[in-house]
Amino acid sequence: MSDLITLAHGAGGEAMQRLLAQEIAVLYDGEPQWEDAAILPADGRIAVTTDSFVVKPLVFPGGDIGKLAATGTINDLAMRGAVPLYMTVALILEEGLPVATLRQALRSLREVCEQEGVRIVAGDTKVVEKGSGDGLFINTTGVGLVHEPHPPGCKSVKPTDRVLVSGPLGDHGIALLVAREELPLRTPITSDCAPLNGLVQAMLQAAPGAVHALRDLTRGGLAAALNEIALASEVQIGIEDRLIPVRPEVKGACELLGFDPLHLANEGRLVAFVAEDHVETVLQAAQRHPLGRESVVIGEVRPGARPRVTVLTELGTSRVLSMPAGELLPRIC
Amino acid sequence: MSDLITLAHGAGGEAMQRLLAQEIAVLYDGEPQWEDAAILPADGRIAVTTDSFVVKPLVFPGGDIGKLAATGTINDLAMRGAVPLYMTVALILEEGLPVATLRQALRSLREVCEQEGVRIVAGDTKVVEKGSGDGLFINTTGVGLVHEPHPPGCKSVKPTDRVLVSGPLGDHGIALLVAREELPLRTPITSDCAPLNGLVQAMLQAAPGAVHALRDLTRGGLAAALNEIALASEVQIGIEDRLIPVRPEVKGACELLGFDPLHLANEGRLVAFVAEDHVETVLQAAQRHPLGRESVVIGEVRPGARPRVTVLTELGTSRVLSMPAGELLPRIC
Repeated sequence: MSDLITLAHGAGGEAMQRLLAQEIAVLYDGEPQWEDAAILPADGRIAVTTDSFVVKPLVFPGGDIGKLAATGTINDLAMRGAVPLYMTVALILEEGLPVATLRQALRSLREVCEQEGVRIVAGDTKVVEKGSGDGLFINTTGVGLVHEPHPPGCKSVKPTDRVLVSGPLGDHGIALLVAREELPLRTPITSDCAPLNGLVQAMLQAAPGAVHALRDLTRGGLAAALNEIALASEVQIGIEDRLIPVRPEVKGACELLGFDPLHLANEGRLVAFVAEDHVETVLQAAQRHPLGRESVVIGEVRPGARPRVTVLTELGTSRVLSMPAGELLPRIC
Repeated sequence: MSDLITLAHGAGGEAMQRLLAQEIAVLYDGEPQWEDAAILPADGRIAVTTDSFVVKPLVFPGGDIGKLAATGTINDLAMRGAVPLYMTVALILEEGLPVATLRQALRSLREVCEQEGVRIVAGDTKVVEKGSGDGLFINTTGVGLVHEPHPPGCKSVKPTDRVLVSGPLGDHGIALLVAREELPLRTPITSDCAPLNGLVQAMLQAAPGAVHALRDLTRGGLAAALNEIALASEVQIGIEDRLIPVRPEVKGACELLGFDPLHLANEGRLVAFVAEDHVETVLQAAQRHPLGRESVVIGEVRPGARPRVTVLTELGTSRVLSMPAGELLPRIC
């Protein structure tokens, strides 16, 4: 195996066979099938989600593109209450990519899948010329089984629901930015990148039917997620500034760099909308899980003619939290 | 909607919402859900496949990247005898991509899915900086239902099986090359790009259990497919040069440019391995289908200690057909 990816590695011939056997095979249990499609058992209802990962840089404090690609797709399945079962992995390699970088990313990806009981069942590998890509793009598509009779969905939120977030916001966004710009920060910030299906299952089982909606807080952060849900469920959402968890070092970096932590991407945080009567039970279940220890309730849902998200500031005034307008931090996931 | 894609279109905020609503929504029936994962019925066994499309140029005689992205994934499901049901569509847009190009590709993609009864159920859109991509990459992942008790697979080929191809080879490869290099050819060559699930169902139903393996002849062409199957099933495959269908204009272009038609990519041709007793029935069923009219038997499977593919030349000599070695034509699909 040469050290750098060449176009021959994507051409469907011998060089490609070597790449598949020596590097890509790490994703699969035993001997990969290399069939055109994998055949799998799936009884009842399945959840399907897809995501392409174009994160920059490929390695960052707390993870790399491989960990992110497995985590992001597992999380999207978890947000529908599905148990993640299968994953496909499609790679776009840029000519000249160090094989060692690919190898590390695939190992991270595989590691997350193994930990979470997800089987990688199909894949694809393409190579593009130098300058036509950016090192490594990974698409992962996930299939999960849905056992919930009424799976959480962004249209199912009701007035009086409580709004819960599972931990401090903005770590992933700031960790990425610091890694990209090589900013010197006194306190290092690590991405929150983590698979949330265990946390979600704990919350769902604590009070069946009580979790009406779940969103992981990726691109666009809490601001985008709350606005999307307000629109989809046609409700108003009110949250309180003083209740929103943000680490002091993230708050500091945001002030320095002019970012709003509510707009920053996270890769291991979720927002849950929980029936008022069961919020304590669900909150405690979340706090007992290692990835939900810092969970808090930050607001509630109100009826209202026009969908809207408002924040009660620490000064006691109220401001509208709008959808982030345009380019914040590109290539965040 | 501006005319060119900007980084803001991928940032998770308002600009992105506009892109989704105005351009990407064309993929979906009615109002898209924009949930993290789609929930779908799937009883029994499912087939899953994934493919990223990086074809260059984005538009070529006989199709475009959208048609190719739908077709390629439908074909991979069909090769396992599965009925294609669902598709996910993940886009990587390069900053500066004309929105009109995106629009055409998505329409083509949607059109193929509609014709073939495939529902697009989930998607993702990322934008990368100018120079970090190449206009438009599309990943499609397909889910199909498997009804066959013994679906065709590349390990199921047996000695005495006949080798059938569904039409002339190399049209897609040469059409792409001509479009890319702007070569002046007297007879225009059109890509064979077409969804093969109808043809496959006709062949499977003609003689249940008789089709042991199916491969669509994409990257690496017939040479790669036959070598992969010989290895997987541990058999020898013998084909005859004079029986292999290649259009005169493709043969001419190959001689001129130094390509072997058996190495060229196709996007609407398959090879089938059929039980000897049923080959006439399956061949006739294929020939009755519009996409299989030019189907022919080109060889047979023999027992043998070492997996190998041989071609009987028109001179009566025999040569080994090896796996294509390295870079042939990159960015072919």
